[in-house]
Amino acid sequence: MTRMLLWLPGLVLTFATVTPMLHADEGMWLFTNPPSKQLKEKYQFEVTPKWLEHVQKSSVRFNNGGSGSFVSPDGLIMTNHHVGADALEKKGGDKHDYLKEGFHAKSNDEELKCEDLELNVLMNIEDVTDKVNGAVTPDLSPVKAAAARREVIARIEKEATDKTKLRSDVVTLYQGGQYHLYQYKKYTDVRIVFAPEQQIAFFGGDPDNFEYPRFDLDLCLFRAYEDGKPAKIEHYLKWSKAGAKEDELVFVSGHPGRTRRLTTVAELEYMRDIDYPFTLQRLNRAEVLLLSFSGRSAKNAQEAKETLFGVQNSRKARLGGLGGLLDPEFMVHKKEQEQKLRAAADKEPQSREKVSPWDRIAGAAKVRANILHRYTLLEGRSGFNSGLFGIGRALLRGGEERPKPNGERLPEYGESRLESLQFQLFSAAPIYDDFEIVKLTDSLTFLASELGADDPQVKKVLNGKSPADRAAELVTGTKLKDVAARKKLWEGGKAAVDAAKDPMIELARLVDTESRALRKKMETEVDEVNQQAYAEIAKIKFKVEGTSTYPDATFTLRLSYGVVKGYEENGKRVPFETKLGGIFERAKANNYKEPFDLPERWLKVEKESNAKLKLDTPFNFICTADIIGGNSGSPVINKDAEVVGLIFDGNIQSLVLDFAYTETQARAVSVHSQGIIEALRHVYNAGDVADELTGKPRKATK
Amino acid sequence: MTRMLLWLPGLVLTFATVTPMLHADEGMWLFTNPPSKQLKEKYQFEVTPKWLEHVQKSSVRFNNGGSGSFVSPDGLIMTNHHVGADALEKKGGDKHDYLKEGFHAKSNDEELKCEDLELNVLMNIEDVTDKVNGAVTPDLSPVKAAAARREVIARIEKEATDKTKLRSDVVTLYQGGQYHLYQYKKYTDVRIVFAPEQQIAFFGGDPDNFEYPRFDLDLCLFRAYEDGKPAKIEHYLKWSKAGAKEDELVFVSGHPGRTRRLTTVAELEYMRDIDYPFTLQRLNRAEVLLLSFSGRSAKNAQEAKETLFGVQNSRKARLGGLGGLLDPEFMVHKKEQEQKLRAAADKEPQSREKVSPWDRIAGAAKVRANILHRYTLLEGRSGFNSGLFGIGRALLRGGEERPKPNGERLPEYGESRLESLQFQLFSAAPIYDDFEIVKLTDSLTFLASELGADDPQVKKVLNGKSPADRAAELVTGTKLKDVAARKKLWEGGKAAVDAAKDPMIELARLVDTESRALRKKMETEVDEVNQQAYAEIAKIKFKVEGTSTYPDATFTLRLSYGVVKGYEENGKRVPFETKLGGIFERAKANNYKEPFDLPERWLKVEKESNAKLKLDTPFNFICTADIIGGNSGSPVINKDAEVVGLIFDGNIQSLVLDFAYTETQARAVSVHSQGIIEALRHVYNAGDVADELTGKPRKATK
Repeated sequence: MTRMLLWLPGLVLTFATVTPMLHADEGMWLFTNPPSKQLKEKYQFEVTPKWLEHVQKSSVRFNNGGSGSFVSPDGLIMTNHHVGADALEKKGGDKHDYLKEGFHAKSNDEELKCEDLELNVLMNIEDVTDKVNGAVTPDLSPVKAAAARREVIARIEKEATDKTKLRSDVVTLYQGGQYHLYQYKKYTDVRIVFAPEQQIAFFGGDPDNFEYPRFDLDLCLFRAYEDGKPAKIEHYLKWSKAGAKEDELVFVSGHPGRTRRLTTVAELEYMRDIDYPFTLQRLNRAEVLLLSFSGRSAKNAQEAKETLFGVQNSRKARLGGLGGLLDPEFMVHKKEQEQKLRAAADKEPQSREKVSPWDRIAGAAKVRANILHRYTLLEGRSGFNSGLFGIGRALLRGGEERPKPNGERLPEYGESRLESLQFQLFSAAPIYDDFEIVKLTDSLTFLASELGADDPQVKKVLNGKSPADRAAELVTGTKLKDVAARKKLWEGGKAAVDAAKDPMIELARLVDTESRALRKKMETEVDEVNQQAYAEIAKIKFKVEGTSTYPDATFTLRLSYGVVKGYEENGKRVPFETKLGGIFERAKANNYKEPFDLPERWLKVEKESNAKLKLDTPFNFICTADIIGGNSGSPVINKDAEVVGLIFDGNIQSLVLDFAYTETQARAVSVHSQGIIEALRHVYNAGDVADELTGKPRKATK
Repeated sequence: MTRMLLWLPGLVLTFATVTPMLHADEGMWLFTNPPSKQLKEKYQFEVTPKWLEHVQKSSVRFNNGGSGSFVSPDGLIMTNHHVGADALEKKGGDKHDYLKEGFHAKSNDEELKCEDLELNVLMNIEDVTDKVNGAVTPDLSPVKAAAARREVIARIEKEATDKTKLRSDVVTLYQGGQYHLYQYKKYTDVRIVFAPEQQIAFFGGDPDNFEYPRFDLDLCLFRAYEDGKPAKIEHYLKWSKAGAKEDELVFVSGHPGRTRRLTTVAELEYMRDIDYPFTLQRLNRAEVLLLSFSGRSAKNAQEAKETLFGVQNSRKARLGGLGGLLDPEFMVHKKEQEQKLRAAADKEPQSREKVSPWDRIAGAAKVRANILHRYTLLEGRSGFNSGLFGIGRALLRGGEERPKPNGERLPEYGESRLESLQFQLFSAAPIYDDFEIVKLTDSLTFLASELGADDPQVKKVLNGKSPADRAAELVTGTKLKDVAARKKLWEGGKAAVDAAKDPMIELARLVDTESRALRKKMETEVDEVNQQAYAEIAKIKFKVEGTSTYPDATFTLRLSYGVVKGYEENGKRVPFETKLGGIFERAKANNYKEPFDLPERWLKVEKESNAKLKLDTPFNFICTADIIGGNSGSPVINKDAEVVGLIFDGNIQSLVLDFAYTETQARAVSVHSQGIIEALRHVYNAGDVADELTGKPRKATK
């Protein structure tokens, strides 16, 4: 297989050239367009085509949204425990709880074959921009242009697949500035080799999630097989003896999911002052409600568990994002970037004829701010937090929308979406009356608090009752808990739905006129305006900067770089690494209470007077590399492309990386390569695995 | 001692008479003005002067804000465990933890003498309205009138004390419509007889607080001594054999602390739509912050524990209050009451000359709503949640205020308050840097979110930094953690404070101009307007209704009544009582996990195959009596003045009783008299105590 590096900047720059202002270690770079200049100037590192090809082909994409890498010639693959958790859970079945027990195959025979895990390795990259653009002539209407683009992309993908048998995806980069054809080798026989207990992989649980210092062995090892034998791998990452050192230049090769770094200052300010605060207010409210409901009984805690975890996770993410948005340095940087781009755009004659896309986005943000609360409460269902209301609305709107021509329906009732909508609607997942009443009471209270109890819509909704009484009446009165009843109404259509007079459907009906109007306004005056304006900005940016910078993340392979480095927080220095011994201190200081409890293997080591585990071995560390969701399981490598660590989290300050890179405090968090080997050898008695990682041929452990 | 029942309605009614609209079992009635008519008409119960005297003299006031009653001729006093907790803790010293162990004096000799507990029993009531009003002539200015009133009250109290040696207090009733002289017999030798473990007294902890059904033995027994011997008590409550039965008429005699039942509809609407929602938003935010900080380590949890408990308690109280305010029935009732009073007031000729007090209060509520957020954030310190900021502001303002004449200072810097201010300011209570930074970061974020990051005041406060960086800089940079430094600045006055350039003082200085302006506006345009308007309404109400109804609660003895009755909640019937066996079920369903763990004595009984404890004995029950904070420990008695229960909580729906009575769901929660006896005999082996309660002479338990 030949690697085709056919990169052709096909556009003539009519705009004034602006050198993009990048922060030192910024960027999720294309392997076809690496940050060679930055690496050379700042780190005197010459990145070669050979180095790039080796790292690219050693990198593995997990279809469930994670990253990984080959780490032995015999197909051994390293990723995070949380990337492998689904496979571990499935393989346990009724007999084992591998999340709890951990797993260690002492020979190839014992490795557990996963049923539905497909891994991809990127083999070829081809620039197909001209081919795609060639099919889209300027005379086409936007709708026809989109169709023509879809068609040519499908053709390119099919031809490539037929020719190479590789999985072939055309990837849209720079918001349409470039199109690349990515071809992947697939591995479908993947087996579990080793996993520690989830307890140690996610030590510190939710309290420590997004935090640093950390003490997690978030590791899972798989092996790729071909023809029933361990795959013979040409490109795999060797293990570094030294591991990550302070101030060392490191690289992260992985699959960042999505960034929105074009977001304008006006929209960031809207998010900072309006959207994030309101979202946090709702998340705080939900968290208190769920915790207080959970505290009342073990049964309640079980019912609320999943929702609670999601709420806590979102709350942390928003809080971290808001912290970044409130950092003036961050905003100043964004303003400077934007100013340069706007100045360049202003020089173009046609720019004077219409409102600039930046100003249109600012206008849309104002519209959104004005309707945000009512929209979120009514159309967004924050005022009706009950799954039963969702079902009621789906039945009501389903009855009204389905008779319409496909193109005129609300998108979620379009023909192609009906199947998944029905799948959700007819789900037999349990609905608990008491939990529904508690959630609905709270959200009706929130509705009345936000809009005022005398608001006509609120009065209609409450119907002369207190939120608690109204919620009880609705939840106990509705027939929608019964899946058969839902099916009957869905199939009966509008007539059946209208005749049912089900209280939950009638509630949805009460607010539907205003709710639909708000949605229409949001779609036409905000979403559409933004979509068009951002497309224009992307075009301007690409014209101005071309490929001198990196494109937004797209779930495809990227190279980030940075240095191993601590930071200042709360007036204190946060050191760049933690040691294995630290986990025992942290567990002890928290009385070994969940989620700071240790698995038995670790407790045993702690007690043993002659334990071999070296407590001063580095365990976790941080670096400035630019990462985001999707990078989970990415290898951290040094200049020699040797593994020095394994990405598993970002600290809370990194949660603003969605919008822009910052290295003041944002850090990627990794397991240290030495910590992995030390734990394998002296906690898990998995010398065989450690041997294979460090380059010795594997022998079965006795 | 003679009981003086000198009740004289001294005012001629010039207003149209309005029969107060009372809900069925409403009222915290004066013993001098019981609800005889209501009891006769609804319950065919004739309340006699003898019955009233007996109950009054059997009732005991605990100085720490609770209630109690004599329950044996030998001075045995019953109250709540949480009323006695302070005494139990103090007596434990280093040797015992009586809160954990419980306590049982097996003979009088073993009873534990409390060092600082004073109990009061109300012996005489005299109407002194004419005496007080006689001293306040109409020609006096408001300031002189207040002084004259204070003077005559002090004289009446002194004369009464000199004459009778009883503690003598003049109590202001009906907001000044009446003045009564209350005379109390004091007991200062009080000893602890029995207390169960706090674990069972507060079973279910915070999650079950303000909830029902409940399973709590919230009981503590003391004994009053005179001259070193158990006091011989003429009036004590006998024990009911049957205990509280469903639908039975019961009475509560106790000391409700404070109600604000004059609150106008406009102010209630302001609270419902503006004040409570904003307060809940802040409490939710604080709770999530404290829980998430606590989750990070046991040390954090310890630092945040007290604050967290307070926040959770307030959140529940507000949520309950808001639930009531959002109940349309509640508001309709308030509106009808107010309409009648306003109609009566409108008939008076002078009422046309000025804006009605109701309209002035409505206007003040609008002003408050407009400045509430900025006021709360800046002057109320919600934007600067750090004890160090409070110290900084106290030093800054102390320097500015103390040189002013006493009458011109902010009240908290007045001569009479300086001592307690210094006591707080120089407290050596520990201040934790990390906790302060976390709280300050969060509150600066809240400030920016509420006012917008581009608000000039916010920009000044953040000073070009992110909330986290600014908080760290302030907390680590201030010298105010050092008590000696505070003392020096306090003593050095304005010059020293200005010269110090302490960052926390300078932060307080930055916002002080706007903060003081907001406070001035709040005081002059809201508080003063309300104070005058409510005084007018009180006068109108008293003129119209006179003593045909009950006055607001004043921490003095009142009689409430109601029936033992369940209610509807979430579409389900909540039964009126729980059984002893229920506690084992509830503990088991929650895996005996704190706060649903049981004390060893109870676990032992649960395991014993031949345990005598009858599981179907009533344990807790609810009734419709009108109670509020201060009623803790009040006896619940039947028509024969026999004990059928012991008040210890109100359900969450009762938390609106501050503003108005409602019996739809609001319930007082009590320990059942039979549950007490059964637990004493068969869990605590305290047959001696049970004997004394049920009327047998006490023998020492072997």
